[in-house]
Amino acid sequence: MEAPTHLNNQPKAVPLQNDLLLRAARGESIERSPVWLMRQAGRILPEYRAVRAQMGGFKDLVESPPHASEVTIQPVDILGVDAAIIFSDILVIPEAMGLPYELVEKVGPRFPEVVRTHQDLKRLRAEVNPEVHLSYVLDAIRLTKRNLAGRVPLIGFCGAPWTIFCYMVEGKGSKDWALPRRMLWEQPTFAHALLDSITEASIGYLQAQVRAGADLVQIFDSWAGVLSDDLYREFMMPRLQRMCEALSPMVPVTVFAKGGGHLLPQLADLDCRTLGLDWQTDPRKARLLIGEEKTLQGNLDPSILYSSPDTIRKKTREMLSNFGTRRHIANLGHGVYPDVNPEHVKVFVETVQKSA
Amino acid sequence: MEAPTHLNNQPKAVPLQNDLLLRAARGESIERSPVWLMRQAGRILPEYRAVRAQMGGFKDLVESPPHASEVTIQPVDILGVDAAIIFSDILVIPEAMGLPYELVEKVGPRFPEVVRTHQDLKRLRAEVNPEVHLSYVLDAIRLTKRNLAGRVPLIGFCGAPWTIFCYMVEGKGSKDWALPRRMLWEQPTFAHALLDSITEASIGYLQAQVRAGADLVQIFDSWAGVLSDDLYREFMMPRLQRMCEALSPMVPVTVFAKGGGHLLPQLADLDCRTLGLDWQTDPRKARLLIGEEKTLQGNLDPSILYSSPDTIRKKTREMLSNFGTRRHIANLGHGVYPDVNPEHVKVFVETVQKSA
Repeated sequence: MEAPTHLNNQPKAVPLQNDLLLRAARGESIERSPVWLMRQAGRILPEYRAVRAQMGGFKDLVESPPHASEVTIQPVDILGVDAAIIFSDILVIPEAMGLPYELVEKVGPRFPEVVRTHQDLKRLRAEVNPEVHLSYVLDAIRLTKRNLAGRVPLIGFCGAPWTIFCYMVEGKGSKDWALPRRMLWEQPTFAHALLDSITEASIGYLQAQVRAGADLVQIFDSWAGVLSDDLYREFMMPRLQRMCEALSPMVPVTVFAKGGGHLLPQLADLDCRTLGLDWQTDPRKARLLIGEEKTLQGNLDPSILYSSPDTIRKKTREMLSNFGTRRHIANLGHGVYPDVNPEHVKVFVETVQKSA
Repeated sequence: MEAPTHLNNQPKAVPLQNDLLLRAARGESIERSPVWLMRQAGRILPEYRAVRAQMGGFKDLVESPPHASEVTIQPVDILGVDAAIIFSDILVIPEAMGLPYELVEKVGPRFPEVVRTHQDLKRLRAEVNPEVHLSYVLDAIRLTKRNLAGRVPLIGFCGAPWTIFCYMVEGKGSKDWALPRRMLWEQPTFAHALLDSITEASIGYLQAQVRAGADLVQIFDSWAGVLSDDLYREFMMPRLQRMCEALSPMVPVTVFAKGGGHLLPQLADLDCRTLGLDWQTDPRKARLLIGEEKTLQGNLDPSILYSSPDTIRKKTREMLSNFGTRRHIANLGHGVYPDVNPEHVKVFVETVQKSA
């Protein structure tokens, strides 16, 4: 683990030894589908837990560039995936906006304060400067790029405005996010204002991640699934499109709207390279809806990794065949579950990599 | 409120004064769409809360036929809906099988014991006799039928085997039900055995509800949405089909698979009269997938009831127009939220009823 000295220097552009992910995202020819896993950094590896045990808590790890970088690179070393994704959390954005969060073990995120009125909005930071308020993520990205030394691309990310809005309004996890949805109907002016602030902060944050070295960025809309077509079109699409337009000239952009099978026809219009699919979405139907102009990412049911290696191989091959060999990035349909056997994850990764 | 005397006598068949729901379910001609709301009994009415306050807890209310019957009829009196649904809970089935539950205020259901092994299965009741183990529900149905005196049909219900399986394995609510899904892959023999037990108990329970007077039964698959097409086809469809085949000769059956937009093509094959749609599903697309042989129920976004009466009217009319005038039962796309203004619910109900 290298100490984070001189991290404010731009990393020298080291050519990538494995650029499969970027070629797949751009729609260029690929020998096989690249493969990585959502939540691959953290959660499953004993090596991650060893680092985690040295720290006070999850947030200490997120906020320590050397440790965040170390656990970011672990899956590249141990699982042999074709991309690294920076170890961080989507909730760093609300925190940078002035709304700190806690992560309560086995419960989830908790915000001591929430945003539900115009008055609350005024208490938020007017402008997030990522180099100041999120410097620890950018330092972790710079350090990771240096330590990866071009082995694989590094993915940056943030939450989609809707998902971040949900947490800032509700203050904790929810099954159906009734309160944030209520805000869209009952206080649309407030909702638009908060969503705009989140969008602006997120664009600046992703652009800074790219300047720090991220080769591709993914926008996670974890709670897209609770919105109807109409609401998503009115409140979310213009903001996602703004984000895509701001980032796409810099790097390939991936949008993953979990539970958003019903939203695919409108998501197809976004100015992004890749759309992520959850495991409920049939890749063949998605391809028909989306056309040939985008790469699809996903979508093995994460619970399949609980089955036997033989079943994992069979189901992974089925998935690959459903996606076809063009414009596909292999992944799970959601984050890998914490109690999955890392050997089973390796079987998934190797099955994709051997299927050239 | 009439006391539950002589409840074991079969209620005399009183002709229904309003049988719109049944005609809509059977595909017969209707003057307009019938309308009711999932969770209409309980939750929203001050009159419900007054009854609730007399009882020790939610379960005391569920288990007291006179009170359960009273709150079942309240929405017919107060909201003017075209159907009553018996006030109860889907978790009465696990309890009848030998797995008691608690409802923790603002947290949800908790099972002190769970079922995760073949050994655990042996501790469950071998055969559920609804007239013995669920007599309080049947008494509530008999009393409600008598007190409704044919004003509107009475809906009986139970949870789908998958949803009940989720609670019995996990022991509490979950976002992604990773553990029950793990069981399907890791312990399929156990999973099949538990699902079979739930299915048998549920069939007997629904049949007893019909004998007690239920005019239509609905099967709630609240957690269908976390299953892929493949798993649903393998583990759930044969059991849902068994349930439909056992009940359909008696009364119309409705199946509501929440989050199951991706499952509609297979659900279309079930031997039931009606499929429920959540608010994420486009009624026109659903009609194309399902064909003309089934009634569709739903699907206003429950959060729309937080908006203004004018918006509720506009959105309700849009919904009606998307469904068309044949084979539709108007409802929300999920249960009504507890903090909705009952006056707004009336606007929804009246808009449907005036749109003849």
